[in-house]
Amino acid sequence: MKSKMVNIKKIGKAKIPSPLRKIKWVRFVSEGDDVISHIHRRSFSGEDELKYFEAAGPREKIYYKSENLKCGIVTCGGLCPGINDIIREIVVKLYQGYGVREIKGFRYGYRGLAKADEIKPMSLDPDVVDSIHTDGGSILSSSRGPQETDEMIDALIKRDIKILYAIGGDGTMKGAHDIARRIKERCLDISVAAVAKTIDNDIPYIDRSFGFETAFQAASEIIDSAHTESKGYENCIGLVKLMGRSSGFIASATTLANRNVNYCLIPEIPFKLKGDGGLLEVLKERLHRKGHAVIVVAEGAGQNHIDDGKGVEKDASGNVKLKDIGVYLKKSIEEHFADENIPVNIKYFNPSYIIRSIPANAADSMYCVNLAQNTVHATISGRTDMMVSKCHSDYIHVPLSMATEKRKKVDSRGRLWRTVMGATHQPASLFI
Amino acid sequence: MKSKMVNIKKIGKAKIPSPLRKIKWVRFVSEGDDVISHIHRRSFSGEDELKYFEAAGPREKIYYKSENLKCGIVTCGGLCPGINDIIREIVVKLYQGYGVREIKGFRYGYRGLAKADEIKPMSLDPDVVDSIHTDGGSILSSSRGPQETDEMIDALIKRDIKILYAIGGDGTMKGAHDIARRIKERCLDISVAAVAKTIDNDIPYIDRSFGFETAFQAASEIIDSAHTESKGYENCIGLVKLMGRSSGFIASATTLANRNVNYCLIPEIPFKLKGDGGLLEVLKERLHRKGHAVIVVAEGAGQNHIDDGKGVEKDASGNVKLKDIGVYLKKSIEEHFADENIPVNIKYFNPSYIIRSIPANAADSMYCVNLAQNTVHATISGRTDMMVSKCHSDYIHVPLSMATEKRKKVDSRGRLWRTVMGATHQPASLFI
Amino acid sequence: MKSKMVNIKKIGKAKIPSPLRKIKWVRFVSEGDDVISHIHRRSFSGEDELKYFEAAGPREKIYYKSENLKCGIVTCGGLCPGINDIIREIVVKLYQGYGVREIKGFRYGYRGLAKADEIKPMSLDPDVVDSIHTDGGSILSSSRGPQETDEMIDALIKRDIKILYAIGGDGTMKGAHDIARRIKERCLDISVAAVAKTIDNDIPYIDRSFGFETAFQAASEIIDSAHTESKGYENCIGLVKLMGRSSGFIASATTLANRNVNYCLIPEIPFKLKGDGGLLEVLKERLHRKGHAVIVVAEGAGQNHIDDGKGVEKDASGNVKLKDIGVYLKKSIEEHFADENIPVNIKYFNPSYIIRSIPANAADSMYCVNLAQNTVHATISGRTDMMVSKCHSDYIHVPLSMATEKRKKVDSRGRLWRTVMGATHQPASLFI
Amino acid sequence: MKSKMVNIKKIGKAKIPSPLRKIKWVRFVSEGDDVISHIHRRSFSGEDELKYFEAAGPREKIYYKSENLKCGIVTCGGLCPGINDIIREIVVKLYQGYGVREIKGFRYGYRGLAKADEIKPMSLDPDVVDSIHTDGGSILSSSRGPQETDEMIDALIKRDIKILYAIGGDGTMKGAHDIARRIKERCLDISVAAVAKTIDNDIPYIDRSFGFETAFQAASEIIDSAHTESKGYENCIGLVKLMGRSSGFIASATTLANRNVNYCLIPEIPFKLKGDGGLLEVLKERLHRKGHAVIVVAEGAGQNHIDDGKGVEKDASGNVKLKDIGVYLKKSIEEHFADENIPVNIKYFNPSYIIRSIPANAADSMYCVNLAQNTVHATISGRTDMMVSKCHSDYIHVPLSMATEKRKKVDSRGRLWRTVMGATHQPASLFI
Repeated sequence: MKSKMVNIKKIGKAKIPSPLRKIKWVRFVSEGDDVISHIHRRSFSGEDELKYFEAAGPREKIYYKSENLKCGIVTCGGLCPGINDIIREIVVKLYQGYGVREIKGFRYGYRGLAKADEIKPMSLDPDVVDSIHTDGGSILSSSRGPQETDEMIDALIKRDIKILYAIGGDGTMKGAHDIARRIKERCLDISVAAVAKTIDNDIPYIDRSFGFETAFQAASEIIDSAHTESKGYENCIGLVKLMGRSSGFIASATTLANRNVNYCLIPEIPFKLKGDGGLLEVLKERLHRKGHAVIVVAEGAGQNHIDDGKGVEKDASGNVKLKDIGVYLKKSIEEHFADENIPVNIKYFNPSYIIRSIPANAADSMYCVNLAQNTVHATISGRTDMMVSKCHSDYIHVPLSMATEKRKKVDSRGRLWRTVMGATHQPASLFI
Repeated sequence: MKSKMVNIKKIGKAKIPSPLRKIKWVRFVSEGDDVISHIHRRSFSGEDELKYFEAAGPREKIYYKSENLKCGIVTCGGLCPGINDIIREIVVKLYQGYGVREIKGFRYGYRGLAKADEIKPMSLDPDVVDSIHTDGGSILSSSRGPQETDEMIDALIKRDIKILYAIGGDGTMKGAHDIARRIKERCLDISVAAVAKTIDNDIPYIDRSFGFETAFQAASEIIDSAHTESKGYENCIGLVKLMGRSSGFIASATTLANRNVNYCLIPEIPFKLKGDGGLLEVLKERLHRKGHAVIVVAEGAGQNHIDDGKGVEKDASGNVKLKDIGVYLKKSIEEHFADENIPVNIKYFNPSYIIRSIPANAADSMYCVNLAQNTVHATISGRTDMMVSKCHSDYIHVPLSMATEKRKKVDSRGRLWRTVMGATHQPASLFI
Repeated sequence: MKSKMVNIKKIGKAKIPSPLRKIKWVRFVSEGDDVISHIHRRSFSGEDELKYFEAAGPREKIYYKSENLKCGIVTCGGLCPGINDIIREIVVKLYQGYGVREIKGFRYGYRGLAKADEIKPMSLDPDVVDSIHTDGGSILSSSRGPQETDEMIDALIKRDIKILYAIGGDGTMKGAHDIARRIKERCLDISVAAVAKTIDNDIPYIDRSFGFETAFQAASEIIDSAHTESKGYENCIGLVKLMGRSSGFIASATTLANRNVNYCLIPEIPFKLKGDGGLLEVLKERLHRKGHAVIVVAEGAGQNHIDDGKGVEKDASGNVKLKDIGVYLKKSIEEHFADENIPVNIKYFNPSYIIRSIPANAADSMYCVNLAQNTVHATISGRTDMMVSKCHSDYIHVPLSMATEKRKKVDSRGRLWRTVMGATHQPASLFI
Repeated sequence: MKSKMVNIKKIGKAKIPSPLRKIKWVRFVSEGDDVISHIHRRSFSGEDELKYFEAAGPREKIYYKSENLKCGIVTCGGLCPGINDIIREIVVKLYQGYGVREIKGFRYGYRGLAKADEIKPMSLDPDVVDSIHTDGGSILSSSRGPQETDEMIDALIKRDIKILYAIGGDGTMKGAHDIARRIKERCLDISVAAVAKTIDNDIPYIDRSFGFETAFQAASEIIDSAHTESKGYENCIGLVKLMGRSSGFIASATTLANRNVNYCLIPEIPFKLKGDGGLLEVLKERLHRKGHAVIVVAEGAGQNHIDDGKGVEKDASGNVKLKDIGVYLKKSIEEHFADENIPVNIKYFNPSYIIRSIPANAADSMYCVNLAQNTVHATISGRTDMMVSKCHSDYIHVPLSMATEKRKKVDSRGRLWRTVMGATHQPASLFI
């Protein structure tokens, strides 16, 4: 069995005694308190490499002197429940734990960081952030797309900012990684940490991303509406498009949390639309038998079925623009049943903005406290180019390069999908 | 000042002592306990006719003998919070108040009534309906569109049903009125009452329709999401389409309940889209000043702006199919700002199915109890071709002909709209 | 039939043209647009005096010049959903409608007004109050008990405040009335208006008080918990004490909204505890038959049953301290069934603080907008010693003396109680 | 480093091919797919023994033939969000996964199992349980206290029940363990599995117990009320007693989820009440500085402070009756500040019944699906005297003896308490 310690980059040697030493109940994390990557015995003896991650937590020695330390925060990409919790707790921990007095919130994402001369950053302190977590969204606002790395670094230098916290998804983490790498090339002593935000829960080495539980809790209420509507009329179908560009975690979790979903379609497992055992056929059979149905489809599912003649398009962040599988399914079902002379009634739900803009629920809110505090501990000790993650049941440090090298996916032969199949009783024939 | 007593039709003379007499705390409603239509002194002396309505409530003498009395319930049209409360309370009051033991629930609206031989009605009793009000929708399901009046009457005769309760909107009430009229022509002793269901709150002589408060409570939460999204990005607009085919009550009430709405557009008061003082111009000015905006548009607003080349189309119930003002506004705004080279971000919300499918809130639920109980009292005493309404602060009897002769509208010079204008600070120039 | 116009006091003659004149959609309320007190025809011919109230709304001529006008707000007594909505809308309407630029919020109720030199008032403007309505409570905080009238008036004079808004219950309104009367004696030109806050809904001439719907919505959820608990064990009773010192409106409305309540006990209608047909006996019978029960008791109910040997005690505001009927009932039931050798399980709920501290729901929030705006219109036109009320379906002006002369009560022979009896099926024998 | 495989008892050898084999997407769990007990590298080399647990999931060979297999379910102890989800999913998986057609629900806990001849069990199938998870509580009802083991076994034998599922806490699991042990002595082939229910989250080898996240989500809303009340008056304290007999997990998680808590008192970490640095002193200092405070106290905290002269008392289940720390603290604070002549206002909240009676939130509901399905898989394969647990990020089998040998506690030097101390800023002096 191969094994490997996952290395985390550091700006320099941590020599300064932590101000947390004064607090008697703090137990510092020390060398060797590492966390393993795999919890299954079989995995250890297999081809997989067993990895050890640094445990997160406060260190006895830190790198940055608290006096005059300046920090910055930026939020990028789509909204997600919990962003304001993360901002709040980074500010509170820096201020009250480590005595940092100057914390800048760059507005409108990386664009606002790059253009900080035009778009004035906000000054953040515990009073300003006191109750921001009771609202959804980001008090710093957000934007999409990359900016010039050096321009952003120059903005940090100009403001003497030594630690940058970038809250965002895949693109944001790649951006943070680029900033960290370029900082090294320029021999600067600025730490960069990301807090991984992905409502889709698709980042590797993270058990669940913050906001994910809130998201499927909200989605589950939408399923209630879809279910009620579907039962309200003859041959009525509640069709719900949920988030999930390349991973079906929200669709799957919502299906399990609610159990009124009859068909759950996700990007990882291609489904058959027409012909024997395809969605249209099994739907017809179900309507005949039950009179109603609920379908959940992740936005990234079934892309292979749609040919709108436009080819592959990309958005400002460089992500592939998905074809609208919800609208496509609605149209396909309507046309199919019209051909068969069966009147059907489709109620279409597209609740993504409603779901992602609400505040974090209690579990996510508590989770954000842990992510934020541990990220502060890591950076103040000089770590950089990394993020904090909850892995199994503890918090660890993960290099940004590892976090962005692939997407986490629903395993078609794993526990989650097995449970979804069992809960929906959707036929295996649906999937190719 | 002219004044007039509003006459309610009766199947026959109420001669049977009410079984409620045994209950000492019941005070029966008697002759002369009428309710006036206008509460403003000025109205009395004006050209308006002062009307007196019969007060609703239990009568000392009833028309139908409870033993062997059979009743039917049918629900038609769109879902609305509270339908199950109405069903539940009609059943409970008939069963426990008046001793009725056979209550049929016709499934799938008037279609299920006309085709009751094929679509088996449900048997309803207090056990069956005990907790149905905790779910949205209708346990009887619904359908749209009219059916043959005589076919429906024949289904009632065949099942010996003496009282029919039809829960539904404008079309349903017209249908109930037709059934009642035809019953009279055929000299039958069957009472027909409607319970007015309109999430739009647009029925005359009704202060508020059941489900309306629940609807704007739910809509107000959607505005929170739209507001959060709009503040999440630069030049971002949260655009929310709400219910309201010909009346802007939901849009107006939601605007007042939430107060994060900047523009509220309703069917009754045409708005200007382009040019000086039009929506696009004031929106540009606001984005420049504030960076974000929330627009609420009722589905029936701004129809004059849309020419899709298809002319007027109608649905199964004969209602004019509305052009999609939400999608049209989204496109118009996008095109306008693209022309002006101003990048904008529009988050579009279309939450109607989410709003209408939830259970009634506490106030609506209590209201439904009153509507249902008073409807039962009215019909058991032989009244027909009528509905119960809350007018000012009491419950009255209204003939179906009056309830369907026009739509209730938001008065452009009345209190509601004045308060909406004051709460949004939208400029008067917007409205023509 | 006697009839009478209800007179509202004015500080002086309104001569100044309203700044709202510039707004084309405002229709001013004029003389004779009065609202009647009774809507039942029978009432008109009875012994009751028919009253006409001034309709609320903006006046074409106002009394106070907006420039340099200073206003004050104070909140007293118990918390209630909607206080922050009222504060917010008074501030917004004064500021944006009438151009008032100096609005002081006195902290901690009348005590903070009397001691304004020590307890610094807050400066209020639309930015400060922008989102306060999303939280429960009062941003101004509150206190109980009266203060020296002249001391409070002196605080107003010292700050040149011309209009005082006092948000509070019965004691607060009496206090406001005293202030207004004393202002007249001292020949000052200061207007005083109250906004009637009573979660108990017990103020006369007010259809419903703000916060009331929110309160019984929250209470209804508590009943769900009590019902679930009661069904969780053998012979289990969910006992819920709700607000209602002298009026059973919350207990009654909650019972109707939820319908899982089996016994609803209110102050107005004495109930029998022991002996034939008393609560203990009917409860025993129900437990035998069903195994569980839910009891709702208003805090002011059944005071005659409790003799704690302490006689009548009073609180800081001079209100009689109620004996704890919830705890008393719990003990009485436990003892009774212990005597009968029947094991019972009582789950006791006392949720008043949970209920009263939440934010207003949508209907209450909209209602507060109307109350606050109309109160501003009334005071700016020079009216004083009054409050705005919703009566039937419109807003009116009511003198404080009328509003405090008695309590609104549940009529044991009226519609509300009839519906409660019908919904619970509690036996008439319970009530004496 | 010592290591050990945790052994799970089996009724007999699993020889029957699983009916799930027909389903192509099921991957069976096989030998060696074990899960480790410790994820920290340091733990491995320490004195702790490294344990390997069987991974949960479907097995290729099962023990019980589905035809004619009869199963039973019983729910014991206090209510907890998710019980109905567990019941539902056990029934659905047995019925639809393994073809079991006879499932009995014993009512009122072990008492109903022992007295099954008197208290008729319910027949459960997917239709009966279809929507039970939308309500809190247990459709089977519950009871406290042990019953004769042999009496319960005889009831199983009489009904030919081969698998018993006992949903309950510590006492219930001990009872299930006794049943399993006695079954072995009597050489019967009946499997017994527990599903660990503890809202306190205090069972070892379980990351979190079902209902726990729902509980602290509900508790967090109560803190909002307490916080609002505390800010509503001068020197006002919101005092909230939460669940947690011997473990402070709910109090701690609620504190982290809400962050308006100033003092969090739990059973594991004794606090000082009087004298230097004690609660009364730090509270006085805070009231002086801030004017309000929120205290959360777990019901098992501070028992050492209370001497009511009654000594140790026990309830029907044999648990020590806790002294009421909430009431005691309230009184102590009131007396202390009365002595100091400082008027304070305490708002006391005791929301346990409200919290535990609500339905599971989405995350708990999904979690229950996994627990229930895996428990069915385990028992059908012949495993007994065990429970399923989520450990780190996967599901494992745990012998009942291990699950009941101790309580899980908050570690005063661990991450959770460190984060609580950091979030509240309560002084270390408070704790002895």
